[in-house]
Order: sequence, then structure tokens, then C-alpha cells
Amino acid sequence: MEDTKAVESLKCFFEPKSVAVVGASRNPFKYGHSLLKNLLDLEFKGNIYPVNPNAEEILGLKAYPQISAIKEDLDLAIIIVPASKVPQIMQECAERHVKGVVICSSGFREAGEEGKKLEEEVVTIAKNAGIRVVGPNTTGILNAANNFTTSFVPLPKFRKGNVAMVAQTGLFAAAAFWWIISKQPFGVSKIVGLGNKCDVDDAEILEYLAGDKDTEVIAIYMEGVKNGKRLFKTFKEVSKIKPIIVLKSGRSPAGIKASLSHTGSLAVRDEIFNAVCKQAGVIRVDGDLDELLDITKAFALQPLPRGNKVAVVSVTGGGGVIAADKCQEYGLELAQLSSETVRRIKENMPSWANVNNPIDIEPLFENVGPEESLKISVEAVFEEESVDSVIIIFVAVPRIVPYFEIKRAVQYLKAKNTAQKPILTYLLGYKETVDSWTAQLEEEKIPVYSSLEKCVKALGCLWKYKMYKAEKNRY
Amino acid sequence: MEDTKAVESLKCFFEPKSVAVVGASRNPFKYGHSLLKNLLDLEFKGNIYPVNPNAEEILGLKAYPQISAIKEDLDLAIIIVPASKVPQIMQECAERHVKGVVICSSGFREAGEEGKKLEEEVVTIAKNAGIRVVGPNTTGILNAANNFTTSFVPLPKFRKGNVAMVAQTGLFAAAAFWWIISKQPFGVSKIVGLGNKCDVDDAEILEYLAGDKDTEVIAIYMEGVKNGKRLFKTFKEVSKIKPIIVLKSGRSPAGIKASLSHTGSLAVRDEIFNAVCKQAGVIRVDGDLDELLDITKAFALQPLPRGNKVAVVSVTGGGGVIAADKCQEYGLELAQLSSETVRRIKENMPSWANVNNPIDIEPLFENVGPEESLKISVEAVFEEESVDSVIIIFVAVPRIVPYFEIKRAVQYLKAKNTAQKPILTYLLGYKETVDSWTAQLEEEKIPVYSSLEKCVKALGCLWKYKMYKAEKNRY
Repeated sequence: MEDTKAVESLKCFFEPKSVAVVGASRNPFKYGHSLLKNLLDLEFKGNIYPVNPNAEEILGLKAYPQISAIKEDLDLAIIIVPASKVPQIMQECAERHVKGVVICSSGFREAGEEGKKLEEEVVTIAKNAGIRVVGPNTTGILNAANNFTTSFVPLPKFRKGNVAMVAQTGLFAAAAFWWIISKQPFGVSKIVGLGNKCDVDDAEILEYLAGDKDTEVIAIYMEGVKNGKRLFKTFKEVSKIKPIIVLKSGRSPAGIKASLSHTGSLAVRDEIFNAVCKQAGVIRVDGDLDELLDITKAFALQPLPRGNKVAVVSVTGGGGVIAADKCQEYGLELAQLSSETVRRIKENMPSWANVNNPIDIEPLFENVGPEESLKISVEAVFEEESVDSVIIIFVAVPRIVPYFEIKRAVQYLKAKNTAQKPILTYLLGYKETVDSWTAQLEEEKIPVYSSLEKCVKALGCLWKYKMYKAEKNRY
Repeated sequence: MEDTKAVESLKCFFEPKSVAVVGASRNPFKYGHSLLKNLLDLEFKGNIYPVNPNAEEILGLKAYPQISAIKEDLDLAIIIVPASKVPQIMQECAERHVKGVVICSSGFREAGEEGKKLEEEVVTIAKNAGIRVVGPNTTGILNAANNFTTSFVPLPKFRKGNVAMVAQTGLFAAAAFWWIISKQPFGVSKIVGLGNKCDVDDAEILEYLAGDKDTEVIAIYMEGVKNGKRLFKTFKEVSKIKPIIVLKSGRSPAGIKASLSHTGSLAVRDEIFNAVCKQAGVIRVDGDLDELLDITKAFALQPLPRGNKVAVVSVTGGGGVIAADKCQEYGLELAQLSSETVRRIKENMPSWANVNNPIDIEPLFENVGPEESLKISVEAVFEEESVDSVIIIFVAVPRIVPYFEIKRAVQYLKAKNTAQKPILTYLLGYKETVDSWTAQLEEEKIPVYSSLEKCVKALGCLWKYKMYKAEKNRY
């Protein structure tokens, strides 16, 4: 990235050595309490200074009446007091040369004229003092690497991983985070809630994440765009290195209006944003959070395909037909299987059966059972030169498909996947079995989808990004 | 329906008094065994005659060496023997004046030239003898009203309900059925697997279902269309009475090719099929089975809205923005709330909060907690004249949103919903809580979606169908 100085100035948000929590509270029902508790529960190793004029000690830490009473130089102040009091706190931060502040409080630009003025006041103080600001109106930061957070939303122990998630909005990001940790098979490296973006915006965070060694995939939920030109430039540069998947709402007049009262976002014409994403190699998600995470999951768990030729291995003919349609829709092609591959699969089938792609393995299944039928067919397409990636469609139907440990089949197949071809799966049928198989597969980093369309679309996105990256890194 | 005689001729498939199971087997690993077992397990009350030349008794029933040995007149024969033997069985059925046969066996048109000839032979015999045929290559029929089935796929006890599901394909239908009974909140009235459709096709089944008092919603998965004109006419007529939701694959060249080797289906140009659905008031689903069931769920559980004005009640601003976008996308409008409604909601909020639509109830929530915030806001929009339907967006974030029995709030609200406005919900967050709330809501017939897009789309479909129905039934 060019602007290494700007990136350097964001370090205080992720790796602060000393942090003040302004508005820390002894009352367990206050956000200023949960915030402090999160830092302690996650065992963050930096120095933490609760600031509260009415307390001597909070959660076992000495409390300070104001920022000026703290002796150590502060990297960061987290502010969680009523909006009207924030300018005063900012002034104190300026005097103490605090590097950055995260303003969790709401009641700023999103709340009308008065709030807008307050926000402008905050920005002016920050600019004059050279303080960087995240927020206001946000849950702020989580850094999995050092267990630092500014979140007042309770956080459990969570899986660390390669996905950074950037979101504009607080409770939505919090709910999304809980959804990720309780449901998604990937882990997170950083979570960033930007709120009203009065200073730090998506572009800067992207630049920071581009250089973050723990982050391999970046997922963003955004409502408005502050500096379009800069965002476009950053999109282009970061996409060369890491995939960016974006869900942007505030697309329609109704959505723009709703967004205005939510985060006070600036609207951007949707066609323009679409074109920008396309040119910049950014994967834009049309749907919702569900789709953002479905696509992210594929990037987080699987390698990129070498080409767009897919083998569909399906235990149901109907699933194969839908998959074939969806492949065409999402820029993928069904691979032409060699006669050798056809022979290998066919030799285990009854004589009447045909082998095409989609490969209907139901006849194979009848002869050798579920586990072997998966092993034989998928191993054959792994070794087939013309196949770049594999979609597996499997169903759970008691008695017809005897329950088996699908994990064993997958571990066997992963060892055979020397060409590193991506594998994505779609499961359908008896929920109890589907849930068990999903857990087994995702533990082995094979993403499972409950929508065949999402499964194929995710693979299509891997391929689309692969093409962009190859093109941009050619010279 | 005009063709009552044709409909009459399908009665034997759903309400047979006497059934032969040709290919019934003592071997528990054979489909001919599971089929018979299903009939016994479901306690079907008609007379069942297993046919097998090598057995005296199967599952406690006297077995017959051939059809001619059965004395009673047969309404139906279910055939589950190798394809090559089927013409001979058909001949016997003709001699005994059997009214209908369901051919479960595969190896016909879908299996190449030889199979195609066999299928033609079967059709000729059936035509000459006036026998109606379902299949071949199918699991056939399930009638929840009398527990009759021709399915060889094991069936558990299942929830009876108002949805009829018609599918072209066997294992896919079976897996879908297991998915429905283990995951979906609606019950089924009939399941019909049509297979290769050598005789009975979608149009005739639709006519039958139009008159079926247990069926209120019809969901169809189809690959090919046999008689387009007739289907179009039937679509139009049945849609006036009951909603039809269709997932049709075999759309793209790749899909058509796959479909050909799966059910030997005839292709139809996708734009034409789309236009037909639109004109005929049929809801066509673009995605996959997941979407078919998501849309079906809304029709099965909720009434149709009077108009297209929606109130979005959301505990997260971000969710509200996405919902606003999606409303616009799917032909819905955000209702303009009256000042009285705004006042009612606002009087329970902190002074800084605003009330618009989407209604961000987070401030309400801070004041009165989750249960009351739902009751106050939703009750207010139930009573608001300008609101036709309600979308609720709720999140599960431990500590921030204290766990509560959402069922109580919903039971309270259902009693207040005197205008019968449809309610759909989207949940996000900690999976354990989301699962619990989903179960509670769906038990109260409030559909829950894990995708906000699907939630709004489903409501959009209810509205689209409402308009069609109102228009067609005007005169």
C-alpha cells in the first residue's frame, strides 16, 4: 500500500499498549461494564484504565476520575458516555496526546441536526489534535491476535481464523458475530465496526487489513460510501492480494432513506457501485448477510480453482440437473470426463448405468454403498486432468442411505487431492443426519451449503476472483 | 376443472381400495420390501396384495404368484421389478382390468434407446387397456389423508398439513420429503413423484389437487414439460383457486443435457416458461429447492396480505436498511406510519429516539426489554390502517438481548392480529437461541427465515399471488 503512514496511524486501534475506558461502570447492566468485562474475560495483556469520576475501582481495576489523571501515555481511549459529553472527553484526549479514540456512543449524525453538530465538533477537535477516530455509533474493534476489543457486546471464546469482517453497524455486526461463532466453520482474525465513519473509513481499514498477516479474506457490510474515489483505488489494490466480499445495502430509495436515519450514510448510485466492484475485482453480494457469509466461507476454507471446469458428483439426478443450470448461470462449465475416468467409475456400477457429468452416483451407491461410492467417484475426478473443482451433492434418507461417518470418506479424499482442487458440498434430507454430516465436513474444511444455488454461486465467486487475481498479477 | 373424467381416473392413485405390490420382497434390503413395509407401518386400511412367485407370505401378508391369482378387482398395481419385466406385468394388469399402475422401476426412457422402446411398449399396452400410469422411474404417491403410499423410500410418521408437493424425481423428492418433515414447519397433504411422466403429467395432477380439500398450497419441482399448452391452461385455472409455486430446472443447455439423461425430459425455452408462469399467476422460483420451500412455507402458514404496504419492525438498524432495499426489489412498499402510531411507539422510548419505518426498536428495547418492545411495536402496526403486513427482524446476542420466551409475545400478538395481517420473521445471532426461537415461532405458524432476502421475497410472492387472484376472481 502507498499510504503506509495512514496505515501506521491505525495500529493504535488494533495493538494498543495502553487503553482508557471512558464511561466504565460498576453496574453490570451498563454497556460500560460489559466493555471492560470483555477485555478482562478475553485476557487482553495491555494496560487498562477505567475512567469514571464516581468509582474507585471497577472489576478489580483502579478507576480514574478523568483521562488527565492517568500517568501512562495512552494509545487509545474507548468512549462510552452520552453523546453530549463526548466533545469534552475528546478535549481531554487531545491534551493527553491520545493517538486514537473509539466512540461507541450513539446520538450523533444518525440522530438528526443536533447530533450532526456534535459529530462535527468531535471531528474538529480530533483533526486539530491529530487523533484518529473510529465511530461514533459502533461496537468498534476485535483483534483475535491479541484478544483486544472495544466491544460492549458480550463476547465468548471464539475460533481464531483467517477472515476479517468489517461492518458499519453495531448490533447487526454483533448478531452477525454471534452467528459466525456459533454456526460458521471459519474463524475470525479481526472484526471492525465502523459506525458513522466520521474519520476512519472502509478504505483505510482495507489498507490495514491488506497488510495484516492473520487476514486472508475480507468480508464487508457497508451502507454508505464516504470517499468513492479512494475506496475504488483501495479496492483495486487490496483485491490483488486478498479477496474482498462486499454486501452493500442502501441501494434503493427506500433503503437509502432507512440508512440515512441509521448511520447517516451518504448514498451512492447502485449501478456505479456495481461497476466499481466489477472493475476492482471485488465480489459483490446481492442478497443479504446469509449470502455474504456463504461466499466468505468458500474463500476461507477452500483454495481457488485453476480453471472453471466443474465435476458434479451427485447421489440424486434432480440435484445434478439443478447444479448444471446453476453452473452455467455462474460462469462455470461442466468438465468433459475422459473415457478413462468414465471407465473407472462405471466398472463399479450395474451394467445399465451411464456415466456423464453431472455424475449420478446412485447406481454406484446401490453396488458399493455410500462411503465407497463417494471415494471412487471423487477420487476419479481428482485425478481427471479436465476437472478444476468438485461439487458433491449428497442426501440423507434413512434406510435408503445408511448412515455412515462421512468424515472418513472426506479424510481419505483430502489425502488424494494432491492437485488442491476446491470441493464444495450440498446436503439435503433428514435434518439430524444433515447436521451431523455438516459438522463432520466443515471440521475438515469442506464447506456445506443448504442451498444448491449458494453452493454453486460460491464456487463461481472463487473462479471469478481467481481470474481477476491472475490478470492483475500477470505483469 | 373441465375434465372431471380425467380427474376421476386419477382417484385410483390416491384412494385405492385394493392394491397389488408387484415385486414385493422378503429381503429387507430390497425396495420391494420397504415399499410394502411403508404401507403396513403407515397403517393403510385398503387391501394389500404382495405379488412374488417365490414367496408364500411377506411381512405377514399372503403373497400371490401373479396378478391373475388375486380374486378382488384391483384399483392399483405398484410395480417394482426390473424394467425388462414390466411389459409382461402390464399385460397381466390389462387382463385383470387394473385401473392404474405406478411404475417405480427405472431403466426406461432416461436410460437410452433400449429403455425408450420399453417405455413405449408400456404406454401402448396401457393406452389399449385404458390403464392410467404414474412413472416410470419414480417413488410415486403419498396421500396423508388415508396413509396410502407407493414410496419405497422409508417414511416416518409425519405432520399432516395443507401442502401438496409434486416432483419429477425420486431420490430428490425423497430427500426433500425428509427435509420437510424434519425441518419445515408445515405439513403435507399429498406427495406426488411423477418420474418420466409417460402418461400422467403435472397438468393432470394439478387438476386433481385443485379439487383436493386437504390441499391449499401446491409446490412443484419439474424438469421438462410434456404438453405445454395444456399445462398453461391448467396453471391458469388452478391458480385462481390455490397458489402454485414452481421450481423448474433444465433451464440452460447444460441443465437440459443433464435432465435428458436423468428423466428423459423434453426441453422448453426458459423465457417461454417464465412468461407462461407470469401470465398464469404461478410463482416461479429462480433458486433451488431451498427457495421453493421457503416460499411455500409462507403460503402454508400465513394469510395473503390486503395490500403491499409493509411495516418492518427491527431490533437492528442494519437489518432495517437491508429489508427496505429488498421490499423495493420485491414489489413491496414501506407503509407510511400515522402520527398516532409513531406516538404510541415513541412514548416508550428515550427522548432522543426517532420512529420511522423500518421501525428501529432498539431504543424501545433499552427501555422496556425485548418482550415488551416486540409487543408494543407490533401491536401498534397491527392497528395501523396503512399497514398490510409485518416483517420482524430480531437478533440473539447473549446479555445484550436477554433470553425470553418469544412464544409468549407471539401468542399475545396473534390475539391482537384481528385484521389477519401476515407476519414473517428473520432471526440472526447465537445459533442456540435462534434455533429455540425458530421452533417457538414456527409452532405458532409464524415462518422464520435465516435469510432476510428470502423473508422479504416470500412476502413479495404472497402479495403477487394476491393481486393475481383478486384480478382473476373479479368477474
